[in-house]
Amino acid sequence: MSRKIRMGMIGGGIGAFIGGVHRMAAALDGEIELVCGAFSSNPERSKASGEELHLPANRVYGSYAEMIKAEKKLPLGERMDFVSIVTPNHVHYGPAKMALDNGFHVICDKPLCFNMREAKTLQNTVEKTGLIFALTHNYTGYPMVKQAKAMVKHGDLGKIRKVVVEYPQGWLSTKLEDSDQKQAAWRTDPKRSGVAGAIGDIGTHAENLAEYITGLEISELCADLSTFVDGRLLDDDGNILLRFNNGAKGVLHASQISAGEENALNIRVYGEKGGIEWHQMEPNTLITKWLDKPMQILRTGGEGLYPESSQSSRIPAGHPEGYLEAFATIYKNFAKCVRARIDGTTVDPMFEDFPTVADGVRGMEFVDKVVKSSKKGAKWIKL
Amino acid sequence: MSRKIRMGMIGGGIGAFIGGVHRMAAALDGEIELVCGAFSSNPERSKASGEELHLPANRVYGSYAEMIKAEKKLPLGERMDFVSIVTPNHVHYGPAKMALDNGFHVICDKPLCFNMREAKTLQNTVEKTGLIFALTHNYTGYPMVKQAKAMVKHGDLGKIRKVVVEYPQGWLSTKLEDSDQKQAAWRTDPKRSGVAGAIGDIGTHAENLAEYITGLEISELCADLSTFVDGRLLDDDGNILLRFNNGAKGVLHASQISAGEENALNIRVYGEKGGIEWHQMEPNTLITKWLDKPMQILRTGGEGLYPESSQSSRIPAGHPEGYLEAFATIYKNFAKCVRARIDGTTVDPMFEDFPTVADGVRGMEFVDKVVKSSKKGAKWIKL
Amino acid sequence: MSRKIRMGMIGGGIGAFIGGVHRMAAALDGEIELVCGAFSSNPERSKASGEELHLPANRVYGSYAEMIKAEKKLPLGERMDFVSIVTPNHVHYGPAKMALDNGFHVICDKPLCFNMREAKTLQNTVEKTGLIFALTHNYTGYPMVKQAKAMVKHGDLGKIRKVVVEYPQGWLSTKLEDSDQKQAAWRTDPKRSGVAGAIGDIGTHAENLAEYITGLEISELCADLSTFVDGRLLDDDGNILLRFNNGAKGVLHASQISAGEENALNIRVYGEKGGIEWHQMEPNTLITKWLDKPMQILRTGGEGLYPESSQSSRIPAGHPEGYLEAFATIYKNFAKCVRARIDGTTVDPMFEDFPTVADGVRGMEFVDKVVKSSKKGAKWIKL
Amino acid sequence: MSRKIRMGMIGGGIGAFIGGVHRMAAALDGEIELVCGAFSSNPERSKASGEELHLPANRVYGSYAEMIKAEKKLPLGERMDFVSIVTPNHVHYGPAKMALDNGFHVICDKPLCFNMREAKTLQNTVEKTGLIFALTHNYTGYPMVKQAKAMVKHGDLGKIRKVVVEYPQGWLSTKLEDSDQKQAAWRTDPKRSGVAGAIGDIGTHAENLAEYITGLEISELCADLSTFVDGRLLDDDGNILLRFNNGAKGVLHASQISAGEENALNIRVYGEKGGIEWHQMEPNTLITKWLDKPMQILRTGGEGLYPESSQSSRIPAGHPEGYLEAFATIYKNFAKCVRARIDGTTVDPMFEDFPTVADGVRGMEFVDKVVKSSKKGAKWIKL
Repeated sequence: MSRKIRMGMIGGGIGAFIGGVHRMAAALDGEIELVCGAFSSNPERSKASGEELHLPANRVYGSYAEMIKAEKKLPLGERMDFVSIVTPNHVHYGPAKMALDNGFHVICDKPLCFNMREAKTLQNTVEKTGLIFALTHNYTGYPMVKQAKAMVKHGDLGKIRKVVVEYPQGWLSTKLEDSDQKQAAWRTDPKRSGVAGAIGDIGTHAENLAEYITGLEISELCADLSTFVDGRLLDDDGNILLRFNNGAKGVLHASQISAGEENALNIRVYGEKGGIEWHQMEPNTLITKWLDKPMQILRTGGEGLYPESSQSSRIPAGHPEGYLEAFATIYKNFAKCVRARIDGTTVDPMFEDFPTVADGVRGMEFVDKVVKSSKKGAKWIKL
Repeated sequence: MSRKIRMGMIGGGIGAFIGGVHRMAAALDGEIELVCGAFSSNPERSKASGEELHLPANRVYGSYAEMIKAEKKLPLGERMDFVSIVTPNHVHYGPAKMALDNGFHVICDKPLCFNMREAKTLQNTVEKTGLIFALTHNYTGYPMVKQAKAMVKHGDLGKIRKVVVEYPQGWLSTKLEDSDQKQAAWRTDPKRSGVAGAIGDIGTHAENLAEYITGLEISELCADLSTFVDGRLLDDDGNILLRFNNGAKGVLHASQISAGEENALNIRVYGEKGGIEWHQMEPNTLITKWLDKPMQILRTGGEGLYPESSQSSRIPAGHPEGYLEAFATIYKNFAKCVRARIDGTTVDPMFEDFPTVADGVRGMEFVDKVVKSSKKGAKWIKL
Repeated sequence: MSRKIRMGMIGGGIGAFIGGVHRMAAALDGEIELVCGAFSSNPERSKASGEELHLPANRVYGSYAEMIKAEKKLPLGERMDFVSIVTPNHVHYGPAKMALDNGFHVICDKPLCFNMREAKTLQNTVEKTGLIFALTHNYTGYPMVKQAKAMVKHGDLGKIRKVVVEYPQGWLSTKLEDSDQKQAAWRTDPKRSGVAGAIGDIGTHAENLAEYITGLEISELCADLSTFVDGRLLDDDGNILLRFNNGAKGVLHASQISAGEENALNIRVYGEKGGIEWHQMEPNTLITKWLDKPMQILRTGGEGLYPESSQSSRIPAGHPEGYLEAFATIYKNFAKCVRARIDGTTVDPMFEDFPTVADGVRGMEFVDKVVKSSKKGAKWIKL
Repeated sequence: MSRKIRMGMIGGGIGAFIGGVHRMAAALDGEIELVCGAFSSNPERSKASGEELHLPANRVYGSYAEMIKAEKKLPLGERMDFVSIVTPNHVHYGPAKMALDNGFHVICDKPLCFNMREAKTLQNTVEKTGLIFALTHNYTGYPMVKQAKAMVKHGDLGKIRKVVVEYPQGWLSTKLEDSDQKQAAWRTDPKRSGVAGAIGDIGTHAENLAEYITGLEISELCADLSTFVDGRLLDDDGNILLRFNNGAKGVLHASQISAGEENALNIRVYGEKGGIEWHQMEPNTLITKWLDKPMQILRTGGEGLYPESSQSSRIPAGHPEGYLEAFATIYKNFAKCVRARIDGTTVDPMFEDFPTVADGVRGMEFVDKVVKSSKKGAKWIKL
């Protein structure tokens, strides 16, 4: 088969932030084309978005239900191969469930859905249908994150002892949700965002990154959540002690009131032999530290990398790759798997490397337990 | 009109570095689609490349001449709107000239062409045909470079006094051209690269960046070129003193034998009131320095930016944008201009911001004068 | 009076690390001279040390008790004015108490002493005698730390909401105490170090720094200490959640098994209006971040500093000042106060800025509560 | 002998910048004591300075001539062992010559003196008397600079090909010499500073650093000096192409009008196998880059250092050492040599590592040739 994989998008109308990110990520590598969309629950807005995106009018739908039904009637190769879900949290479950039930693969923005019940149902549906489901914990797409994971896996750091992961932002330092800033509005609204604010939105990225790199599981946690901005309904800051299933210890903190911070997702992992340090805002550098020799600086596409990292960069070292490229790597790997499924071939396991519905369930559970721990006065809870 | 702008590619077959970059850059913003290509002078290879790129077989050509002729016969809206030329230097002129003569807009990799004669002819052709011609001095696409340019233009730094621009690389520290590394082979071959090596390949980027940001022209230079690797036919290092047309002074150095360097294109510009510093390898940061107040750090998409910079980033501050995004901005602005031409509308002058054939001629002249100065024993030469 | 202030040293014989640091710090500003010492409990070693330090033999003593008694008999102006105590933790109390009881001012390495009982007694003695007592929490001597404190005090950051303070080291990643490394030996020995390892040695620096900069008090904590190296008797890693007396929250982590780390004492403080970030290993830079304007970088001796900071640097901006200079600032301020006492004058309150016996008691209490919280399974404890 | 080496100071009265630096540097290691001084040509000011420095009144002199004569009459061991000269450039020669002629060792601030004639005479005097003469090109005292030198010497980088050295400052961006800023006044005054401004003051540091690290000599140069501030009498900016005696090429630029820069003395050296990069403002880090392996970061006092570097740091890695410590290392090594001379012993050659009168002559010659090249319109001149 030499055609592009065909994507239908749910959500992501004009002006939406994350919809545009998904479209750029999907387009980058030339393997995916956007063929249809239900870009808004407002049909007018959906239509206008479709036109702006150069889609034919008959492939722009007024609702996701309409899209799934209509596309299913088209012949394979013409109809969409998968849906990309980029709606707010509370509108993940519906379209994901329906798409799966109708035979479409799914790529979905994180967090997986609104609550644990939905999450478990989705997981069952994925298992039952055997369809491919990717969750865009996009930070795992960075080449230097893949290098970090590979180094841990190969034992370069020795047994892991300590993890420090953090995600400070400052953009919700004031009550931005009272302005007409949509991003702020739904993220601070329990009806659309779920039980948690900062922890759900970005704490889960930190949790996912820590478990992805170390291959460990958080087994116990003690969380102290706060809401610093008066009148806000969800947490805007959280500090969490972690214990991992191999005996390692850790700290996770995430915040939306760390005034002046952009997206300072950082991680440090220390083992018996060495440590690594990575900063999302300068993502092409991985600092490695050692007991008895000088620090080494690894660089995207540079010398001394494992294939898991090398194969995930697109251009030679020294040409910085960013957030969109990392995001695109999730799409690229997902597309390789979808293509193999269509062609009836198998895919190099190296490319089966993207967050799945299981990671989504894990994230939901993490959020639940963090909130529970905090509500009990920051007591230890098993995960 | 709601359709994508249609691109035909010349060069850039399987395994080529810069061809892939152009395709990703063109695809990113969803405004351009690749509809045809002559990817190699070897028709088999061209065909295989086209298939890998999911093009229909009848739009994959065995030569650029064949492509231009065939596409011209297709109706507008079906045929390509412009060509993207990504061949080695000595194969820029032919396709660019023919494309222009047949009414196609052109976007071309740098340097413009092989020698000044070709360059001047191309410039005349562009002027005569009135077609749009963009040259991918891609570093000018970075949001922080646009901010630097805007700050100089608005007088924030005061009258410019000094410019230090540098582009050290290390990848040609050994005689890599004797291996089967294609990138090294043509770049060190006078028959394909032209009169200069490092200066032509990357020195021109430095020159272009300095003139782009400052809005000044280099009026005089004194260049000391070297070939450090035995048997190499072109310069692999150059140090150049600069004088600008407003009395400013400067230094430009570029190198392919600065062992261990990746793509360390850096620039510092100092005026009477302050200075700016930018590093390509961490491109989302612009350091600004002042006479009587603390340094300020400007960030892509962040606070305190001019619109010329803000409008050229795609995602909120803290999500790093890289080389491909900067490259894509050249394509995005070019596409906006092509679209306006097709639609018969005008374009916001802010988007007419990409390097043109005039910048290409300027670069060719710079290289010529640098080589001449160096051959005379590093004497001053007017530009 | 124009003479130097006269110092007698207790501990710090040949080869000791911290003794040399104190001597260099005391000497730097030309206000203090070393006149006598009891450098070791081994009289031979004390004597050899004194000779190496160019002291007259009759001022080199075999024990601190001998020194204090003998010096007291010398006339004022000839005898030492104060003692500097640089012995391991368990030998702080004895000489400090005796020095105070005999009328000598004291400057003492941290932590204050071995346990809370000793600490309280010392505090009482200081209060009773009215003598000057300084504790060398030297990191508070850095000009950029003083700037951070001044910014908080002046309300530049608004009400403080969050503090992240950390002190990772890696030097005890293996069982170094089994070699003949003296520093490792006493620091991991409960008989000489006290109830805590990493937390006592460096966690207290982190606690002191956080309280010094913010002017807040830790009111409650939840601590999870670990001993990762088999057979070690004290903690080598600790993660602690903090609550402050104004409602701010925080995280403190300290470690001696963060492989590859040197002395990465870092602090971030966020308020309603902005945040600051400081790294001990690049101490001349203070990063300030703001809600609605770009980051500013403040620099030792540079523009935009409060006098508390400016007056504590010795050379113009751009000449890096280090650990010894910060240490020397503690000595310099202490010496100013001692001199004023001798002269019967008063001192500018700006110079009464050094850690005191109260800070030492506070640190001891912090360590006690951390250990208690951890032993109870990481439960919250009030401070 | 167990006594400190005794220093007499010439210049450096109250409020002088460099005098205080020399005193702190001399005091740091406890091997040198200030015993006398002629701190100002104004006897009142000299006296007041002496008192502030806690010197006995009879050892504070009204002129350097008086001091040298008087001290010579004192017995060895009581009289000063050497003089430290910290006056402006035009008052280096007189006291240095007289001190040497009277048997005193000399440590002198740079540049060596006012012109080449004086320089040569001093060099002859040093050779004739056999006395020890050190010049405080203090940047060579940094441990990471010593590491860089050792790496080149041991061939780690292979044959050196390229050197980029730069010293931008911004403090003279305006006509500061018209205010009562003394530092600015004499540095821009040809009668006190000599034939050059920026090049003499800081360009010589860059030249010295490049030759010190590489062990090479600049054999030819082409210099373009400028005076950007109206009415200024000496250069405030210079850009220079370099050729070295082994065929390496280089760039040196220095500036006092690079607005916003502090003391950004930086050097990069590239050889056939690798490169090093060092920044004075973060002096404890040496970046090493390699052809076929990742960058390594060497740190003061850390792993992987040559003894020349290790022995020149005072405290364990992670405790930053600064400008004063580097300066003090010049004094420390000088003092070891003076002590050996007094004791009639020999000194480990590792400590004979400080700039000498020959380096001073070299610097004077460099300045002369730079000025000559520039005056001829930036022509090449042999050194």
